[in-house]
Amino acid sequence: MRKYVYTFIDGVAEGKGAWRDLLGGKGAGLAEMTALGIRVPPGFTISTEACRAYFAAGNRFPEGLWEEVLAALGRVEAAMNLRYGDPARPLLLSVRSGAPVSMPGMLDTVLNLGLNDDTVQGLIAASGNPRFAYDAYRRFVTMFGNVVLGVPHEAFEKLLEAAKQRAGVEADHELPAEALKALIAPMKALIREKTGRDFPEAPSEQLRLSIAAVFASWYNDRAVAYRQLHRIPETMGTAVNVQAMVFGNLGDDSGTGVVFTRNPATGEKGLFGEFLLNAQGEDVVAGIRTPQPVSALRQAMPEVYAELEAVCQRLERHFRDMQDVEFTVQARVLYLLQTRTGKRTAPAAVRIAVDMVHEGLITQREALLRVEPEHIDQLLHPMVDPQATVTVIGRGLPASPGAACGQVVFSAAEAVRRHARGAAVILVRQETSPEDIRGMSAAAGILTARGGMTSHAAVVARGMGKCCVVGCQELSIHEEERYCQLGGHVIREGDILTLDGATGRVILGEAPLTTAELGAHFAELMGWADAHRRLGVRSNADTPHDAEASRRFGAEGIGLCRTEHMFFAADRIMAVRQMIIADDAAQRQQALRQIQAMQKEDFKAIFRIMDGLPVTIRLLDPPLHEFLPHTAEEIDALAAYMQQPAHALRQRVEALREANPMLGHRGCRLGITRPEIYKMQVRAILEAACELTRQGVQVLPEIMIPLVSHVQELAVIKRDVQEVAKQVLQEQGVTVPYLVGTMIELPRAALTAGAIAREAEFFSFGTNDLTQTCFGLSRDDAGSFLPYYLEHGILPEDPFVVLDEEGVGELVRVGVERGRQTRPQLKVGICGEHGGEPRSVAFCHRIGLDYVSCSPYRVPVARLAAAHAALQAESPAKAPESEG
Amino acid sequence: MRKYVYTFIDGVAEGKGAWRDLLGGKGAGLAEMTALGIRVPPGFTISTEACRAYFAAGNRFPEGLWEEVLAALGRVEAAMNLRYGDPARPLLLSVRSGAPVSMPGMLDTVLNLGLNDDTVQGLIAASGNPRFAYDAYRRFVTMFGNVVLGVPHEAFEKLLEAAKQRAGVEADHELPAEALKALIAPMKALIREKTGRDFPEAPSEQLRLSIAAVFASWYNDRAVAYRQLHRIPETMGTAVNVQAMVFGNLGDDSGTGVVFTRNPATGEKGLFGEFLLNAQGEDVVAGIRTPQPVSALRQAMPEVYAELEAVCQRLERHFRDMQDVEFTVQARVLYLLQTRTGKRTAPAAVRIAVDMVHEGLITQREALLRVEPEHIDQLLHPMVDPQATVTVIGRGLPASPGAACGQVVFSAAEAVRRHARGAAVILVRQETSPEDIRGMSAAAGILTARGGMTSHAAVVARGMGKCCVVGCQELSIHEEERYCQLGGHVIREGDILTLDGATGRVILGEAPLTTAELGAHFAELMGWADAHRRLGVRSNADTPHDAEASRRFGAEGIGLCRTEHMFFAADRIMAVRQMIIADDAAQRQQALRQIQAMQKEDFKAIFRIMDGLPVTIRLLDPPLHEFLPHTAEEIDALAAYMQQPAHALRQRVEALREANPMLGHRGCRLGITRPEIYKMQVRAILEAACELTRQGVQVLPEIMIPLVSHVQELAVIKRDVQEVAKQVLQEQGVTVPYLVGTMIELPRAALTAGAIAREAEFFSFGTNDLTQTCFGLSRDDAGSFLPYYLEHGILPEDPFVVLDEEGVGELVRVGVERGRQTRPQLKVGICGEHGGEPRSVAFCHRIGLDYVSCSPYRVPVARLAAAHAALQAESPAKAPESEG
Repeated sequence: MRKYVYTFIDGVAEGKGAWRDLLGGKGAGLAEMTALGIRVPPGFTISTEACRAYFAAGNRFPEGLWEEVLAALGRVEAAMNLRYGDPARPLLLSVRSGAPVSMPGMLDTVLNLGLNDDTVQGLIAASGNPRFAYDAYRRFVTMFGNVVLGVPHEAFEKLLEAAKQRAGVEADHELPAEALKALIAPMKALIREKTGRDFPEAPSEQLRLSIAAVFASWYNDRAVAYRQLHRIPETMGTAVNVQAMVFGNLGDDSGTGVVFTRNPATGEKGLFGEFLLNAQGEDVVAGIRTPQPVSALRQAMPEVYAELEAVCQRLERHFRDMQDVEFTVQARVLYLLQTRTGKRTAPAAVRIAVDMVHEGLITQREALLRVEPEHIDQLLHPMVDPQATVTVIGRGLPASPGAACGQVVFSAAEAVRRHARGAAVILVRQETSPEDIRGMSAAAGILTARGGMTSHAAVVARGMGKCCVVGCQELSIHEEERYCQLGGHVIREGDILTLDGATGRVILGEAPLTTAELGAHFAELMGWADAHRRLGVRSNADTPHDAEASRRFGAEGIGLCRTEHMFFAADRIMAVRQMIIADDAAQRQQALRQIQAMQKEDFKAIFRIMDGLPVTIRLLDPPLHEFLPHTAEEIDALAAYMQQPAHALRQRVEALREANPMLGHRGCRLGITRPEIYKMQVRAILEAACELTRQGVQVLPEIMIPLVSHVQELAVIKRDVQEVAKQVLQEQGVTVPYLVGTMIELPRAALTAGAIAREAEFFSFGTNDLTQTCFGLSRDDAGSFLPYYLEHGILPEDPFVVLDEEGVGELVRVGVERGRQTRPQLKVGICGEHGGEPRSVAFCHRIGLDYVSCSPYRVPVARLAAAHAALQAESPAKAPESEG
Repeated sequence: MRKYVYTFIDGVAEGKGAWRDLLGGKGAGLAEMTALGIRVPPGFTISTEACRAYFAAGNRFPEGLWEEVLAALGRVEAAMNLRYGDPARPLLLSVRSGAPVSMPGMLDTVLNLGLNDDTVQGLIAASGNPRFAYDAYRRFVTMFGNVVLGVPHEAFEKLLEAAKQRAGVEADHELPAEALKALIAPMKALIREKTGRDFPEAPSEQLRLSIAAVFASWYNDRAVAYRQLHRIPETMGTAVNVQAMVFGNLGDDSGTGVVFTRNPATGEKGLFGEFLLNAQGEDVVAGIRTPQPVSALRQAMPEVYAELEAVCQRLERHFRDMQDVEFTVQARVLYLLQTRTGKRTAPAAVRIAVDMVHEGLITQREALLRVEPEHIDQLLHPMVDPQATVTVIGRGLPASPGAACGQVVFSAAEAVRRHARGAAVILVRQETSPEDIRGMSAAAGILTARGGMTSHAAVVARGMGKCCVVGCQELSIHEEERYCQLGGHVIREGDILTLDGATGRVILGEAPLTTAELGAHFAELMGWADAHRRLGVRSNADTPHDAEASRRFGAEGIGLCRTEHMFFAADRIMAVRQMIIADDAAQRQQALRQIQAMQKEDFKAIFRIMDGLPVTIRLLDPPLHEFLPHTAEEIDALAAYMQQPAHALRQRVEALREANPMLGHRGCRLGITRPEIYKMQVRAILEAACELTRQGVQVLPEIMIPLVSHVQELAVIKRDVQEVAKQVLQEQGVTVPYLVGTMIELPRAALTAGAIAREAEFFSFGTNDLTQTCFGLSRDDAGSFLPYYLEHGILPEDPFVVLDEEGVGELVRVGVERGRQTRPQLKVGICGEHGGEPRSVAFCHRIGLDYVSCSPYRVPVARLAAAHAALQAESPAKAPESEG
């Protein structure tokens, strides 16, 4: 027969820390701590296998499970010298979920099992504290009624509020024992009324139903949504941990807390966390009471604090990572309730990883895999410009770093709606709950009025790498009326706020943002990443400013320099419009002469900065309409500039409008029908290159032809390019090694890459456009259905964010394969936005690209992602989960 | 050493009829006729190999060629008992091009070689006809000067015109011998003036230069253009035929003519052609003099006519196909100058093929391969409705059947321009020349003032299957001023004319057109086609009217019934717009209820007609913007209909506008976000099917989901379809066997066809959209560059016309392969417009599709193309060329 239950009692555990899949994260941690001799309330873990068997059996306990539970319970009773359901010396139990992957707050938990009208008397006798006992009892009835029987929490809250009014008190803990006792019967009546069944007095029934409820919570809505969001398989299931209760709310020699073994925001070594005297653990996590720093424990019970410090150090050395530890002190005895790898901010992740290498705890390889590439992105997040004068209207806790600026909204739904329309939003909530997950994901920043550094909002925001300020207590929120008040200001929905996640400041309006300084830890880690990666990393940079950022962030060249972005400057747009719109060659030539001089200066500036590194310049690729004048004023201005009658110009503009500009007269199509444009650009590139080469700058231009669908397009243009190049090089008397290649951004180009590689000296996959054409999906128009698709799991990811490996990826794979068949030395890169997305980078590594190119600020992300890809290819073990 | 020259003299030929690639079509025909003992002027063929060697050697005669020419010339001299260049008994030669594939009029020819001031005297002595001799001489100088030395023809014409004025005559043949003689010196002076060199008096020099000129004509502009148009390889080269001249212009016992062995317009058996007494052959072909019917020869020289009839019959039986024969009668002696497979109209092709099977000349298989599928399209071309009252303003010769209606243009360039803008044009010319090829190709119909049934315009138009009326002698054309006059009417450029190619009528304005009756020959041939093909043929039919045409043309089902086409009817569009635009479900439901009833009636009508055959119905696939009201009036009308304020509706419409509607919120994306639309359609389909099934009609509905890119889209919709289907079938108490499948019209769908086939019971490749997305090419916008691409050979074909096998075809191939891997019995078809294009049909056959679906009028074309594909797959021999 299968074994479903694994005990951990008094230093002996049946399970092991490595059995996370079987025991869940919490269960594995409890087993491991028990085996280490750390004090843990005795208990047992019901395995995920039991959970799966429960579902497989049609939501019934599989054969033998209940018997195993009872046997394990007997051993817990023996260890505690108490009996579950014994009116004289009752053992109370907690029943907690614990999936193999952390799903904070998503699954259910029931505490204080075993209480009924009889056993509560035993608890009074044992604790000598009737108020504590009745408080535990009414909490249990509430929690059981809500979690197991499905009665809304608010209904219980109403009874509690009424009791407080009757007693004339404000806070829960001011209610006397009698008042608490008087709540029990109405709460049970409420359960009967809402569910038609009685609250189960029998402790065994309480246990059986609670275990089943925790299993069932695997499929509650928020858990399903969370798994979708985090790509956690449905089949995993959750374990259930049944433990003897210990109480932090027995009096002022008790308490509960959460600590990190290092500072999760900065990575600094030393205990960091929170403690609440005379409280149950749930009070801290739920953010209902704002706790004190953990140093409060040192003052109150120095010997307990010292023990905690020692235990934490031991756990960290044992698990070789920073731990997030929950503990309870019951009458000066320290119990560890949970340990797991602690979530941390990006700077902390970097610092901890690097420090631990120096401490000899982990290897460089491990350190690299400990830092998620997305963490690096957070490091590079903007912060509020320290130089700027800003209007600070309030302060909260700096729960997750970065800075964010956006429209204020007061509900998750509104956040999703406005985000879908392209707005940056700041989600402002009393406190967040798991129901808010999608809104938090959509928001640029999160601000809460309540809760501490380990509240839901803080934990989730750090996980998402999102700027978050919590516990801004002056903030009063009027959700229904859609406004809030802070520092004497009224902020309505849609008004702009800026959050500073580094300091906790709340700033009125849009504050100027700037980027963070990257410290020595970062530089060291990046150095290791560069040593381990095979994939090159370039940047997409259109301006000297971008080029400078690229070098600063370690790009090894420019993979995409979009010339059209140079064309929108106010002092150029007229000439550019004339070039596009003119229907006779003379007019076009006149415009081209003007633009050529400007382009040459653009290229010189960029080449100079990129001295010694390749620069891929894409020739003009405008969806035509982007260059057309739209308003009557624009047309009039252009008509005056071109000395043409406005009505004629209007007709011409009208004739150039396209039904589907994305699939229209753009890219090399324009280069072919108006060859003088590309010739001008090539001349500008090569004149710039020659002039700098003479000055000793090493220029490596790669001329890239966009939107090729047929090799013949490239052949025709390449002939022109070579002809101009020959002329320029002769005129200038300098040799510049240049390449001519193409974007592969249309399915046909990928499929016929073998033919195209006859002409192309390099390929760069334009995966943005390739995604559009492969899916037949206009990015501009997808807003009306793509969010629906993602929400309903019709597409697993937004394909514009994560490269679609099955479809678009197959085109890339085929393109590389066929291109290299024709030209084995073909240089192949990717320059879509996927080039900076870690999973997409891993894909690029696997299929053998030479480099990825991404926005300058994503370059470090890509460098680390490339190192991850290389390390994971060496030994395909998964990166350790960053959460327990 | 290579042999370059092949003689054919007095019944002995060194070459063979089968050596077309080596000897060219004309040379092979001459060799074959010689070997058959048919009288042919003796001569020799310089092979295409010599031509290629000439180019390879840098436009120089390859070693040994000239020596071989001289040796062969010697044998011709012996046979004729004349000597080339002999002042006393001069042999005159013709030098004619002759490529392996007919390129009528594209390559050069020089006649009457060997004449100079000395030999002309010998010709006078031999013919006793000084006028004839000087006429030949001045023709030779003109032709040589023009073709070999590049002096414009018009310059010679001017001299001729001046001579006629001086002589006071109107026609060339009225010029007396002296006047002709007097032309020689000025013509030679003209050559010296224009070229700086003397006219070569030496006959050997004349021969050498003429051969070189014919070689060189392979690369003249019009030949290059023609080869592009007809996809003839550049490397082929032309042969050169050197023959003793025979003269049809020696007097009234001489003449020249062209005959077909059967009527090339109708296919009727018996000689059909033209004859011109006392004329050179070029007079007929060039359309300069309008010839008489060949029966004129019977009257003038009955014994020669009888011999011609016998020879023609012999040739036809020998070549087993209808022949197009050129002949010259010199002093009552019949010489055959050329035989080749005759071009024919579509009805003639069908009739000849079927007749020849009945005559035992060819097999059914050969008959099928003799008829090009595109010929069938001509059969189905419209004709002028015989019932209609029309304004006939003139008449010409009915040179190529069909009827056409369009804007009049007077130059090929203008024809191309207007055609590119989507206009149907009628090209009106004095006479056409090879320079007009592109204009003729662009025109819907061609009208000429001069020329006969074998003139350039007539031959080319028949080849193109284009309506053509020639020799409309009343027509006076003012090309420069862009108007013409006919029957007292002035027709300006852009005015509308209708041509009736069946009767030769020229009709003012737009005449109503109708389709031809298809005769018994056609039915018989189609029967053979059906017996030989494997590929099914369905039709794209959206209406009962289309469905009826489909059955009439032999479709085996409907492969694509587009429901949105049903939605544009004036009485529905309001409800449809409401359905699309409504943003609340109640409003949408109201619209849907209305539409459902209409849709059901649509489907019933179509199902009834298609009794027993499958009908694939595509659910709504609108690029959203097609359904939006555009003008202010439309918006106001809809606002009134929907009882909404117009400004709110305008905002809503604005919000629904898309940047790239082709890639927008359409197809299954709309079906998913607004599921009630598809549910309504499915209900309408199945209720219609159930009601008819109860009436004994066999209904086989196939429900097709458009624009699927990910299997999950199909899965979600299929669940809805099945749910509705279950309800309807239960309500109706009838069983209807229905399928659910998908369009494969996005690259991603093709690439992930393996996954999609898990859900799809059939695939239909939508190759129109697949072409758009594979190429990244909007059909609506391609007009600004695609014509340029085709003209410059950047794309070999318009991919919207001929399926691009390399790119789009690969997606189809991969889609079929992967789909069938998952579901071996998957039914797979194609429903893009390529389904009726013969080369694309052949591709569909090769990759194993089950059927093609095309517009009803293309169904017979597809049936024959499918038979061709099957026959060619059996034995991959090429279909015989239809031209010699």
